[in-house]
Amino acid sequence: MSSRARVGMVVTGTEVLTGRVRDANGPWVADTLRALGVEIGAVVVVGDRPDDLRSALAWLSAEHDLVLTSGGLGPTADDLTAAVVAEHQGRPTRLDEDLAQRVQAVFNRFAVARGWRLDPEATRAGVLKQATVPDGATVLAPVGTAPGLVVPVAEGRTGPPVVVLPGPPSELRGMWDDALTAAPVRAVLDRARPLRQETVRLFGTPESELAASLRRHETAYGSLDDAGLEVTTCLTEEGELEIVTRFSPDDAAAYDDLLATVRADFADTLFAEDATTLDQRVADALRAAGATVATAESCTAGMLASRLADLPGSSDYLVGGFVVYANDVKRDQVGVPQEVLDEHGAVSPEVARLLADGARTRLGTTYGVGITGVAGPGGGSAEKPVGLVHVCVTTDDGRVVAEELRLAGTRTRIRRRTVVAVLHHLLDLAG
Amino acid sequence: MSSRARVGMVVTGTEVLTGRVRDANGPWVADTLRALGVEIGAVVVVGDRPDDLRSALAWLSAEHDLVLTSGGLGPTADDLTAAVVAEHQGRPTRLDEDLAQRVQAVFNRFAVARGWRLDPEATRAGVLKQATVPDGATVLAPVGTAPGLVVPVAEGRTGPPVVVLPGPPSELRGMWDDALTAAPVRAVLDRARPLRQETVRLFGTPESELAASLRRHETAYGSLDDAGLEVTTCLTEEGELEIVTRFSPDDAAAYDDLLATVRADFADTLFAEDATTLDQRVADALRAAGATVATAESCTAGMLASRLADLPGSSDYLVGGFVVYANDVKRDQVGVPQEVLDEHGAVSPEVARLLADGARTRLGTTYGVGITGVAGPGGGSAEKPVGLVHVCVTTDDGRVVAEELRLAGTRTRIRRRTVVAVLHHLLDLAG
Repeated sequence: MSSRARVGMVVTGTEVLTGRVRDANGPWVADTLRALGVEIGAVVVVGDRPDDLRSALAWLSAEHDLVLTSGGLGPTADDLTAAVVAEHQGRPTRLDEDLAQRVQAVFNRFAVARGWRLDPEATRAGVLKQATVPDGATVLAPVGTAPGLVVPVAEGRTGPPVVVLPGPPSELRGMWDDALTAAPVRAVLDRARPLRQETVRLFGTPESELAASLRRHETAYGSLDDAGLEVTTCLTEEGELEIVTRFSPDDAAAYDDLLATVRADFADTLFAEDATTLDQRVADALRAAGATVATAESCTAGMLASRLADLPGSSDYLVGGFVVYANDVKRDQVGVPQEVLDEHGAVSPEVARLLADGARTRLGTTYGVGITGVAGPGGGSAEKPVGLVHVCVTTDDGRVVAEELRLAGTRTRIRRRTVVAVLHHLLDLAG
Repeated sequence: MSSRARVGMVVTGTEVLTGRVRDANGPWVADTLRALGVEIGAVVVVGDRPDDLRSALAWLSAEHDLVLTSGGLGPTADDLTAAVVAEHQGRPTRLDEDLAQRVQAVFNRFAVARGWRLDPEATRAGVLKQATVPDGATVLAPVGTAPGLVVPVAEGRTGPPVVVLPGPPSELRGMWDDALTAAPVRAVLDRARPLRQETVRLFGTPESELAASLRRHETAYGSLDDAGLEVTTCLTEEGELEIVTRFSPDDAAAYDDLLATVRADFADTLFAEDATTLDQRVADALRAAGATVATAESCTAGMLASRLADLPGSSDYLVGGFVVYANDVKRDQVGVPQEVLDEHGAVSPEVARLLADGARTRLGTTYGVGITGVAGPGGGSAEKPVGLVHVCVTTDDGRVVAEELRLAGTRTRIRRRTVVAVLHHLLDLAG
């Protein structure tokens, strides 16, 4: 494994380091490179400080065959990646006049499209900054205003090439193909070896049980490491236990043995043998079944419907729904009788059922979903604590699936896990 | 600034490195430490490989006064942080019998609460692994099953202490206070100096204009750096331009000058002078105005209502709403006349207005919101392209705010930016 080409990445930006902005580039790059047979070894997030960027570049360069950076290419003074990378690679910078003209043209186009009144002097300063590049670098055409760069180390020095990419994900992705075809990057990719990655997902199995299963498997078949399988397991925020295995195609037989063990040990909780998202599986199943869905959501307040609409073409199965936050809305818009609300309370299996039926019959769908619960942090009682949620799915052919959830955690987690539980019920019903 | 105590953090887990799981710990730790006057210098994400963790610890230890790790403390074999940190700090590991009993008790409690059937042998193996700790480490009581550790470097060696914390955010946060009171951590925190952080947020200003304003300010007042202000600017996914400034309380006068410049230059786009989220501001404004909201959402399909319900106590202002994905639902549930749908099309200012009025009058609220648009990627036309969204807010005292949005990007971005635009309208109306 040690001769496989490895990539290190630096994500710059105090806004990322402090969590104000989530890094979408590291994961996307890791995933894209993996598909090419290249592994990412480490992603480092540093703030907008030259010393920290310098130090991260030095560390990653010593350990990796290629280093990528994202961010720090904007027109403001705290964007300093190009200059620091030039220095790190031992190359002076120069103004690329041709590039300056292209960047200026982009600014002018943006200004027209978005109705900005640009101060010419301010714009010019930003353009000059963005068009000042390390000597000997390959310039990647800008998608926004910032060009990317492929910067080989200066002659007479050693070290991996550094690819400088912009922070906005759409800009980074827009110049990705150009980056891969640059000669210094090509040379690294040519060392890539094919790598398979397989995913198995369980819903409702504790991680310790999986660990035991894997230990028993190793007792019977020998070490997973020795068999060439790199297995990582993780419990996702959504309550799925993911088993991801990476291996050379030569070791496929060992993976098949492992898969057989997992299938045998977890037949009732295994719900997917690939990385297809739960959302995509639900969409595929609903479409295949010709099923349509209406929702009536209290504590989730539209989160389920919105998630069902996440994928393109969702109008094939999502018809609409109700956000029934107040009890009057449950009564007047979905037809839950006031007596039921009075007798059982809004958070009850009876109300969940009536919400499901009411949504389904009012919108004329095949499936109806009702959700009512206590998301907290307030509003709980001894009898109906925070985290108690009743969900119900009914179908036009008389099937009823009802579940009482007892969820822990924050308000957000309780609502999200509720939505996930319903998605699994929809998958079971339609699949 | 260089003598300020600085912290480095390693987040372990192939699932984080490859983006299957988002790291919530780095940002939370950075924010919490900042409030204590301690800065985070770098966050490194590595996979579940001992060599990579070892290398990251070596790099961070050379550059920081305290190193934190999160993740890799589970019962499965790929969780190896405790062992690697022990080795890095030059300390042998030993089984802590007392801790083993506590961890076993947690497992037993979980099994009862969650209905797991635990294999005793498997559980015992996991318990022994989680109770094997570096000699001389301070054990932080487990919140889940994994204890945390504060591991000073072995005598006769030099290097910062390493604090080992579990990956699940609730577990990490649950033992945070204990970690801070451990003597080796205390010693570092005692070097912290107070640091103020102020945030100003603009909605609708291009970053280059802000850069120009900052340059003019520096011409008039001198360098921001020399004045002791560390300014970072960033355009968030939600379209807000954030200006975050960090400075010593001694430099507050320089910050006041900067704030005066920003206020003068961006009076019409400045909407917040603190880090309070847009959501919280909307909630506060609605509550203060005694306003209630009903929604009728087509392309966002409940995303606005769900977001309005994100904060505790949202029933003060959110009454309910409609997910009007299909045209029949717009007509039958919210009362948009078929003729209007036929004449203007579902994506039209007329329908947005009727959705707002219909939601408001049917649910008896003070405000109603209508949203209809083309989220894409399909469904666009020359006249009504992907990204065209009509939003409308009407009030029971006759105010009407309507906007035609022309948004770029993915389906998800278009829907999210639509919700943000409506939240800004609600803030303007209620504020």
